[in-house]
Amino acid sequence: MRPDQVRTLLEAVQSGTLDLTSAQRELTSALRRAPFEDLGFARVDHHRVIRQGFPEVVFGQGKTAAQIATISERIVAAGHSLLITRTNHDVFEAVRIQVPGAVFHETARLISQVTEEPEPGHGTILVVSGGTSDQPVAEEAVISAETMGNRVERLYDVGVAGIHRLLSEQERLGQARVIIAVAGMEGALASVVGGLVRAPVIAVPTSVGYGTGFGGIAALLSMLNSCATGVGVVNIDNGFGAAALASLITHA
Amino acid sequence: MRPDQVRTLLEAVQSGTLDLTSAQRELTSALRRAPFEDLGFARVDHHRVIRQGFPEVVFGQGKTAAQIATISERIVAAGHSLLITRTNHDVFEAVRIQVPGAVFHETARLISQVTEEPEPGHGTILVVSGGTSDQPVAEEAVISAETMGNRVERLYDVGVAGIHRLLSEQERLGQARVIIAVAGMEGALASVVGGLVRAPVIAVPTSVGYGTGFGGIAALLSMLNSCATGVGVVNIDNGFGAAALASLITHA
Amino acid sequence: MRPDQVRTLLEAVQSGTLDLTSAQRELTSALRRAPFEDLGFARVDHHRVIRQGFPEVVFGQGKTAAQIATISERIVAAGHSLLITRTNHDVFEAVRIQVPGAVFHETARLISQVTEEPEPGHGTILVVSGGTSDQPVAEEAVISAETMGNRVERLYDVGVAGIHRLLSEQERLGQARVIIAVAGMEGALASVVGGLVRAPVIAVPTSVGYGTGFGGIAALLSMLNSCATGVGVVNIDNGFGAAALASLITHA
Amino acid sequence: MRPDQVRTLLEAVQSGTLDLTSAQRELTSALRRAPFEDLGFARVDHHRVIRQGFPEVVFGQGKTAAQIATISERIVAAGHSLLITRTNHDVFEAVRIQVPGAVFHETARLISQVTEEPEPGHGTILVVSGGTSDQPVAEEAVISAETMGNRVERLYDVGVAGIHRLLSEQERLGQARVIIAVAGMEGALASVVGGLVRAPVIAVPTSVGYGTGFGGIAALLSMLNSCATGVGVVNIDNGFGAAALASLITHA
Amino acid sequence: MRPDQVRTLLEAVQSGTLDLTSAQRELTSALRRAPFEDLGFARVDHHRVIRQGFPEVVFGQGKTAAQIATISERIVAAGHSLLITRTNHDVFEAVRIQVPGAVFHETARLISQVTEEPEPGHGTILVVSGGTSDQPVAEEAVISAETMGNRVERLYDVGVAGIHRLLSEQERLGQARVIIAVAGMEGALASVVGGLVRAPVIAVPTSVGYGTGFGGIAALLSMLNSCATGVGVVNIDNGFGAAALASLITHA
Amino acid sequence: MRPDQVRTLLEAVQSGTLDLTSAQRELTSALRRAPFEDLGFARVDHHRVIRQGFPEVVFGQGKTAAQIATISERIVAAGHSLLITRTNHDVFEAVRIQVPGAVFHETARLISQVTEEPEPGHGTILVVSGGTSDQPVAEEAVISAETMGNRVERLYDVGVAGIHRLLSEQERLGQARVIIAVAGMEGALASVVGGLVRAPVIAVPTSVGYGTGFGGIAALLSMLNSCATGVGVVNIDNGFGAAALASLITHA
Amino acid sequence: MRPDQVRTLLEAVQSGTLDLTSAQRELTSALRRAPFEDLGFARVDHHRVIRQGFPEVVFGQGKTAAQIATISERIVAAGHSLLITRTNHDVFEAVRIQVPGAVFHETARLISQVTEEPEPGHGTILVVSGGTSDQPVAEEAVISAETMGNRVERLYDVGVAGIHRLLSEQERLGQARVIIAVAGMEGALASVVGGLVRAPVIAVPTSVGYGTGFGGIAALLSMLNSCATGVGVVNIDNGFGAAALASLITHA
Amino acid sequence: MRPDQVRTLLEAVQSGTLDLTSAQRELTSALRRAPFEDLGFARVDHHRVIRQGFPEVVFGQGKTAAQIATISERIVAAGHSLLITRTNHDVFEAVRIQVPGAVFHETARLISQVTEEPEPGHGTILVVSGGTSDQPVAEEAVISAETMGNRVERLYDVGVAGIHRLLSEQERLGQARVIIAVAGMEGALASVVGGLVRAPVIAVPTSVGYGTGFGGIAALLSMLNSCATGVGVVNIDNGFGAAALASLITHA
Repeated sequence: MRPDQVRTLLEAVQSGTLDLTSAQRELTSALRRAPFEDLGFARVDHHRVIRQGFPEVVFGQGKTAAQIATISERIVAAGHSLLITRTNHDVFEAVRIQVPGAVFHETARLISQVTEEPEPGHGTILVVSGGTSDQPVAEEAVISAETMGNRVERLYDVGVAGIHRLLSEQERLGQARVIIAVAGMEGALASVVGGLVRAPVIAVPTSVGYGTGFGGIAALLSMLNSCATGVGVVNIDNGFGAAALASLITHA
Repeated sequence: MRPDQVRTLLEAVQSGTLDLTSAQRELTSALRRAPFEDLGFARVDHHRVIRQGFPEVVFGQGKTAAQIATISERIVAAGHSLLITRTNHDVFEAVRIQVPGAVFHETARLISQVTEEPEPGHGTILVVSGGTSDQPVAEEAVISAETMGNRVERLYDVGVAGIHRLLSEQERLGQARVIIAVAGMEGALASVVGGLVRAPVIAVPTSVGYGTGFGGIAALLSMLNSCATGVGVVNIDNGFGAAALASLITHA
Repeated sequence: MRPDQVRTLLEAVQSGTLDLTSAQRELTSALRRAPFEDLGFARVDHHRVIRQGFPEVVFGQGKTAAQIATISERIVAAGHSLLITRTNHDVFEAVRIQVPGAVFHETARLISQVTEEPEPGHGTILVVSGGTSDQPVAEEAVISAETMGNRVERLYDVGVAGIHRLLSEQERLGQARVIIAVAGMEGALASVVGGLVRAPVIAVPTSVGYGTGFGGIAALLSMLNSCATGVGVVNIDNGFGAAALASLITHA
Repeated sequence: MRPDQVRTLLEAVQSGTLDLTSAQRELTSALRRAPFEDLGFARVDHHRVIRQGFPEVVFGQGKTAAQIATISERIVAAGHSLLITRTNHDVFEAVRIQVPGAVFHETARLISQVTEEPEPGHGTILVVSGGTSDQPVAEEAVISAETMGNRVERLYDVGVAGIHRLLSEQERLGQARVIIAVAGMEGALASVVGGLVRAPVIAVPTSVGYGTGFGGIAALLSMLNSCATGVGVVNIDNGFGAAALASLITHA
Repeated sequence: MRPDQVRTLLEAVQSGTLDLTSAQRELTSALRRAPFEDLGFARVDHHRVIRQGFPEVVFGQGKTAAQIATISERIVAAGHSLLITRTNHDVFEAVRIQVPGAVFHETARLISQVTEEPEPGHGTILVVSGGTSDQPVAEEAVISAETMGNRVERLYDVGVAGIHRLLSEQERLGQARVIIAVAGMEGALASVVGGLVRAPVIAVPTSVGYGTGFGGIAALLSMLNSCATGVGVVNIDNGFGAAALASLITHA
Repeated sequence: MRPDQVRTLLEAVQSGTLDLTSAQRELTSALRRAPFEDLGFARVDHHRVIRQGFPEVVFGQGKTAAQIATISERIVAAGHSLLITRTNHDVFEAVRIQVPGAVFHETARLISQVTEEPEPGHGTILVVSGGTSDQPVAEEAVISAETMGNRVERLYDVGVAGIHRLLSEQERLGQARVIIAVAGMEGALASVVGGLVRAPVIAVPTSVGYGTGFGGIAALLSMLNSCATGVGVVNIDNGFGAAALASLITHA
Repeated sequence: MRPDQVRTLLEAVQSGTLDLTSAQRELTSALRRAPFEDLGFARVDHHRVIRQGFPEVVFGQGKTAAQIATISERIVAAGHSLLITRTNHDVFEAVRIQVPGAVFHETARLISQVTEEPEPGHGTILVVSGGTSDQPVAEEAVISAETMGNRVERLYDVGVAGIHRLLSEQERLGQARVIIAVAGMEGALASVVGGLVRAPVIAVPTSVGYGTGFGGIAALLSMLNSCATGVGVVNIDNGFGAAALASLITHA
Repeated sequence: MRPDQVRTLLEAVQSGTLDLTSAQRELTSALRRAPFEDLGFARVDHHRVIRQGFPEVVFGQGKTAAQIATISERIVAAGHSLLITRTNHDVFEAVRIQVPGAVFHETARLISQVTEEPEPGHGTILVVSGGTSDQPVAEEAVISAETMGNRVERLYDVGVAGIHRLLSEQERLGQARVIIAVAGMEGALASVVGGLVRAPVIAVPTSVGYGTGFGGIAALLSMLNSCATGVGVVNIDNGFGAAALASLITHA
């Protein structure tokens, strides 16, 4: 039960449009779920929207389709928006039986449904990526950030091997409030972008590459050691995590 | 030459208080330095304040005292504030001959001088640390952030082994606009703080610990894999880097 | 041949209900197996129940179904309980031909049969887990500990990103004699639990996570570097190992 | 203020031997410290003895002698016993000015003072070590465990290269309630001991060795992968941590 | 062409049973192959039997079945014995068309054919293994060593968790001229065996295990850091390599 | 539009064979593509041939067949040669619909089409490989280098275990202008070759091997630590990268 | 004895200016040294100038001053130029007693003496470095390359955090025949330079940095995974190795 | 008490030259030491000469001079030869007070005294090293092997960068019964030697090198992945371990 739902209920009691017995029953039921709901295998955190500004997000990997569908139904039943990461089409088939309005974003491997309209963020989040192979991670960031109420722009395939592709877009870089830099291989994109702008840069190393790329470690180390200042790093391939951090900044 | 200095000069020309020859000489001299000044062993980046909102910061490690003193003199001569990281008292002795007003912060291992007043940031940066041994890194963050124009608060020794120490400070946590979480050993502080607040959390792993702490790697991995959302990570012991990122957020 | 079986036999001889020839034959046969039985590819350790309080446990991974079935048959023939870890349904099909009473625990990937009633342990073992994806490892711990004669309770999905889920269960935490903390990602659960209780905590890192989780290494390092005291660690995903250690403590 | 101190005070009030004003002042002063005391650079956790059965232990590494002396004074002033790990003679000189009764254990690198008599543990803790070079870590475990109220025995230099040295002590191994196995190099001692006893084994890898010993990693991995069951592992060289875990078991 | 073949030919010429033209043709043909034969994708080393006492062994992994069959045919055509490692049944089908007498050893994943009788080695090679899952690697060592002319004995499943299984075989251990110790998990077997005997011990770490076993690294490090002397180590799972080294020792 | 195409057009205008309107349209269209062409998911770098002497090469891994086919069509439409690495037969089926003349090199996993004749390089590039299993990487180097206009020779299966195979080819080694040394396992080939010649050696570690080969890391480290001088290293399995570097040398 | 010395001697014999006995003695003495000279602890390779175009270079680390002085004296006595790397002033004091003309380059930690004039290389080698702290490695490359007969230029402190410093020097970058890119931290310089030029780029990672820079590993991985083509990598801090490779290219 | 000493005593009793009381006292005293002697901090293994053919060797690192001197005195008092590894001159000063005949080998960092003449080994052990900096490790092997009764030869500075230095010594290589190959950097020496001979090769990686040599790991991996057969590896810098293994082979 969100704050505005509580207020609406109280106003209905005050104005006499809701009798006390019904109000009590509704509040009691909501409180039973608060601050989390125990499904045995999971404890759904219904207060996260209050603590963090966005409802609990379901990390899809390692959970069965049935578990995800059940959790999804409870989140939506509590009036919250739904976001499932690292998922696939089979899970989507199970989820949409419980949550008919859910949408599957194939490239981003996300399922989402906007139940409560998110508070809009201030300014634009620009998602910059090094190469075509980084697209799934970049899209995970884009769709996640949009679902959290942000205006998002894409600037893809601007890796530093052909740096004029990036330099020709300096104006867009300069207008963003937060930049998410997604890159695999040597991950130099974060340093170069970080040196060009005064916006905070959230760097996402991707597992794109081979050999000594070590599944994203080369890019990760590159980003952690960036000689440019103002760069924060999230886990390898963690497009969602970058979006969540960026969204906290645009909502601060 | 900062934008306001250029404007002052142009206004002086317009009002006739500065003759053209002098104005030309002054501007030419400034332009010769722009956008960087070549000292042979270093190219001082005088335009960084324009691109990034704060002048070039001198990374002290690996440079001789003489090199640092020379670079410092050029930065101050260009009208910029000075910040030197990873430094010590010997370097300070060399620097203060060139820059008499410089201050040495012993615990933080920083030298600073505020030449041009920084633009004040919005909101408070809260620096949280796990234990007493993390203090040098936490102080590096505090002094750096203050030098960049931020209001900074400290909340030290609130590691998760005695979690009531952290929980009793939830109000201060909730009021910060950005939180810098500094912790060594297992670095769990970032996850716990990240789960309690809606502010962005910048996590700084420290090299405090022993054995499998691997000089900060355990804390780093812990922070990169945080189950809380909204956490960005910087390099091990990089208090300055966290401050720079936090300051970009408060100045966005 | 267990100590009580030996005693029963000797009493039967003493009371005259068993003739010497039969007694001799039975003892000789038992001794031929002692202290281990050589199957060529395996030497079944029939004395482990004497040395360690529980019979040899079969580590299923890397053995063929036929090998496991043969070993199982010999263990049960010696009068011992059976526990097979890291196994699957195909092996179960082979085992139950030899050991009809065996039970397959799917989530825990275990096969068990209680042949001799285990000595009951003192106090409760509480298995705490961070997220839904950690369930297979947590269940391996639960079923293993129960098979060894322990009273076991579950407390699942109480990861530190929503720490109120854990704090609301402090009473159950306080009542356990031993706690097994199962967590992947950054593994901070072990530190937080360790700081809240005076029971020994056995930490099990899981391979749940991605990128820099490195298949459980991040959680492992976090647990080894726990700032809380009283935490011992077992191998990644080793729910059985944690149960065996916990059971030695409840049986001490 | 410990529970027995509270009771004594209340009884004094009840019997009239303590006036209300004095009682109030004393309790107020105690409560101001509770549950922790803020020294600016440290928050001393005065309730740890209640939560964990032993007062906060001071990890000496990375703290100045002055900081340690101040923390020590506060711990003793609160009526608690003192234990400082990873320390040296210089720190001891500073501490004993504040805490005159403190004792320095050179090999173990510990400072201790028993202010409140600890609750005695059940059974014996046996500390087994592989070689002479492991002695500092083994002694850290021995002295720590003794300070926490345990009966401790030593069995040193019984590494597996001459396994008869270990096998000849099977009786003592069999009598221990908990065994702490301290070993560097390949750390095989934990596996061999684990296979011989039914007591829980706490394995402490040491940094003794060279080359591919990698400062204790070889021993750590060996212990985590022990084919014997009932083995829990703590951080490299963490003799204190092993003692704390063992003491929780003897006090359960 | 082996030395004895050369001698036989020369004697035939001397005694007049072989005419010069035939002798010349045969020698020319042999010399064309010497010291290696270029197949384009491979250069078969026909002189290895002279340099090393055993013909070139074909490492099967990463080669196509057709390539292996061609190389095999050339080796046998040159009068040498054949040994193919890391292979499978499909390759065997291709090889036996070219080399009808070849034998496939399934557990050991080897194909062999004894074309020239190897010189017998002095003494027995004893292959000791830790557990049933180590069998494929142990068998690779056994069959390889036998093919090279050695008397080989097996002693399987004598891991240190039940050390009496190993101690009861001290006589056989003492009679071996070389011991090959095959073990995964923590690999302590090599140290314990090394401490019991005066024969050289060749340690083979296997990839048996999980989690921090890291595919054999834990066992490898354990073996390299063995506190017992007289232990040499080969690559993970390299049963063949251990046999080759052992065979050089028995043939020295 | 390549420099020679521009010149041809301008000459046509000068000689009157091309009217101004057509010329303008053609140039405008070309300029619209310059310096890169934005396909949304990719920005094709049409100026790379000018900057680096060879058109943009398509790294096939991680891109869909449709994406590769579209990029290929644009590259060829711009008059450039096509080279696709890390690809397979399915991609080839999609590409040859757009680029009918494209050729698939199966062992090398490359697709190529020579649209503009490359400038011939000076001298021969010799590709040396250690074993038959290194062939795919070696062939990737050979075909790539040929496509870039080089004369290339192969010298395969000359690993150092039978060093006479390499020493017998010293003349060919001495005649090469650049040598590409491809080797897995311990990668010693680069050091031995580097000690024999005065040509620059480009070392390519391959992922051939097992166990502690760690997918090419052993060979990589060996090559980086070569005691021979004049050795530069590229990423594991990066045959194309070695060819590109070699080709820059032959075209310098 | 160099080829031209041999020719001079033979011509002297032919023209009668040298008697046969003297000629024989001189040649015999030279041959005794050829192809190497055994000093017991070292075998000086006097033929390396013939095989590789430059005499044997002395790697100073790990050798005593006396050993280095003796080797130096033999190299110069054989008529070769001298280059000692990784050395210091104490060694220089010992060397110059034997080789009075030797010069010590302090920043580069090199000792050199040009005994025989090296063949001049074609084109310029440009040494580019990221920051002031990379200077010792960059200077090692510069002095080594000059000693080998090359024209060398420096372009220092052009790291990518202020990319305009690099872009403003595109003309010099374009004129170099080979570029040596020296950088620590994230090592992005190699990728950016590699994308701007058509000259081969030799990347030298330096150990400059801290924390996750891991003594140069971050930069090394970055360079090995460069998305730019035409980049070869040498060992961390190996300025000499880069120079040797570059010199082979300019002398090819 | 060695077997020959026991026999002498018994013969003396038999012949009446020794009275029973004295014989009993002497035997009792010897038995009290058997099989090991407990010094509190160490258990000296007096039976190792019986089990392994050579007395217990003292690993000097991590033991105090006083501890080493005490252990040494006990070993010599028991009639055994003395060998102390990883030691220095200060320890030697302490040891020679207890064991006046002890000798210090500076380069090898060993102390030795031959008390009982060792059984001579069959054949020669040849110690081959890559460079001058490997000398301390090579000498540790040489002196250790000699002390154990072996005939040892040195062949130093034959690294593969100048492979003719090694090839010119093929005869000596061919005559050795065992070869110890000592090399740092890329460690290719073991593979090349292994391919040239039929003797077993014991490879010792050294920590000589820098950067990605990682203190001997590059050489270690190279040796474990050797494409030559018949190579066994010991720990980094473990010259003594190689000698012990070689000596077991020559004494088999």
